[in-house]
Amino acid sequence: MRVHLDCFPCFLKQSIISLRLGTKDELLQKRILKSILPEIQRADISKPPAYTTTFIHRKIRQLLGRDPFKEIKSEYNQVALGLYPSLKTVIEKSPDPLWTATRLAIAGNVIDFGIFTPHQNFGAGVDVEGTIRRALNNPLAVDDYSTFRDAISDADRVLYLTDNAGEIVFDRLLIETLVSIGKKVMAVVKGSPVINDSTVEDAVESGLTEVCEVIDNGSDAVGTVLEWTSSTFQETFKEAQLVIGKGQGNFETLTGAEKKIFFLFQSKCDVVSKELGLSTGSMLLKKS
Amino acid sequence: MRVHLDCFPCFLKQSIISLRLGTKDELLQKRILKSILPEIQRADISKPPAYTTTFIHRKIRQLLGRDPFKEIKSEYNQVALGLYPSLKTVIEKSPDPLWTATRLAIAGNVIDFGIFTPHQNFGAGVDVEGTIRRALNNPLAVDDYSTFRDAISDADRVLYLTDNAGEIVFDRLLIETLVSIGKKVMAVVKGSPVINDSTVEDAVESGLTEVCEVIDNGSDAVGTVLEWTSSTFQETFKEAQLVIGKGQGNFETLTGAEKKIFFLFQSKCDVVSKELGLSTGSMLLKKS
Repeated sequence: MRVHLDCFPCFLKQSIISLRLGTKDELLQKRILKSILPEIQRADISKPPAYTTTFIHRKIRQLLGRDPFKEIKSEYNQVALGLYPSLKTVIEKSPDPLWTATRLAIAGNVIDFGIFTPHQNFGAGVDVEGTIRRALNNPLAVDDYSTFRDAISDADRVLYLTDNAGEIVFDRLLIETLVSIGKKVMAVVKGSPVINDSTVEDAVESGLTEVCEVIDNGSDAVGTVLEWTSSTFQETFKEAQLVIGKGQGNFETLTGAEKKIFFLFQSKCDVVSKELGLSTGSMLLKKS
Repeated sequence: MRVHLDCFPCFLKQSIISLRLGTKDELLQKRILKSILPEIQRADISKPPAYTTTFIHRKIRQLLGRDPFKEIKSEYNQVALGLYPSLKTVIEKSPDPLWTATRLAIAGNVIDFGIFTPHQNFGAGVDVEGTIRRALNNPLAVDDYSTFRDAISDADRVLYLTDNAGEIVFDRLLIETLVSIGKKVMAVVKGSPVINDSTVEDAVESGLTEVCEVIDNGSDAVGTVLEWTSSTFQETFKEAQLVIGKGQGNFETLTGAEKKIFFLFQSKCDVVSKELGLSTGSMLLKKS
């Protein structure tokens, strides 16, 4: 997908979320917001919006002098870890643990802890478990589970591209399920901070590093912009038998890649949803 | 009020509405949207957002080579004229025609025909009359009617600042009511096109020129930016006994003016509503 007209205001809305997390100084917020307008003007509209978003958030971090998501990412890892024991039990008691763990991994993307889906606000007193229950009960708008199950069955190795902090605990649950049925999983995080995406710190904090090998992709891009990843990651990706890509960012950037990828995500914006012919907020398990 | 952080994405959202009305060429839409980013970068954040909006829409008209709202304004005048006879009857049968006509004038701003309040979509088959009925029945969040009625009673002359096309037919109803109780009304429209604001063409099309004297303010600004209006208008404004200002734009730009002004409008954006301590969509009859 390419930059759509409606992506332009959204670039600014996402920037404002970052700026409000990064500083309480309203003049600085406005000054930085103005400074990223030239990045938007340079937006390559032949590329996915994730390219421009990457430049924008790189500039925001540079001008703030820090990663505005650092604290909130850790906070959300802790919230998700608090849910881990009960979710683990749900999976273990399920007649089809792979199905339940997969649905939970998508639910983890659905909640994304309110950062980029403002109607989902995971503050104090919010019904996290109710949201997960609803995410589990609502049908998938695109459901390639039977193909996914067969592909998993045929594969020895799985390359798992994580998305956000917090959500990474849900990824851990699915990866543990894959490991329990004999799959060798390699999980991938970002090479350096970008929005609320998982980095090595989050993999450690979520306990994922104790479950499988975790590598970083050498990039600070939203999603997976292959040309910007490290040569090591590119080699790993090239050799992968089967890829699981979490989140809309990975769908945006990898949807044309020549690789067997299963995308697990919620379509969070109107532009992507419209391209998919779905309503915004739809949950998908979609084969590339 | 001043430019708020949340105004920045809204500048782009409003621009997109204009661009979609102005051309079907998606590449041109994106090219023009990018061209207005420097206008946003130059935004004077010590001024109301209407200043920046004025520059933006001037640039859009210049790059499109036309007024993108020309056709839709005429269309909405016609829709509103279709409602005129029944609304006139509602006022005439009312125990307090001034109250009913005032509420209808605010209702006219509430509907604004879906251009800048996307949840109000006045296309074919939409229940216009139902929306007006609801607007009449819902209480005003700020209701200075008794002060307004007394001020009208004390004044010989009223300067009436109109807002949008379509809505101008509702203004005509209130102005007719004022004229029927012996007030000399002068109505004001924009000097040249800006978004869906009324110009002399709309005053003629709505029949307003047959009811009272209509002047233009010599300006293409959103709201009423006094320093940009003609010297004739400035003189008229200075000498006015009592001013009625329709719409959020006039509230934004005139709220600090030393003049007895009654603002009749719906607070359509979160920023203005928050400053007023009201929920978005509130209707107001507010004394300056």
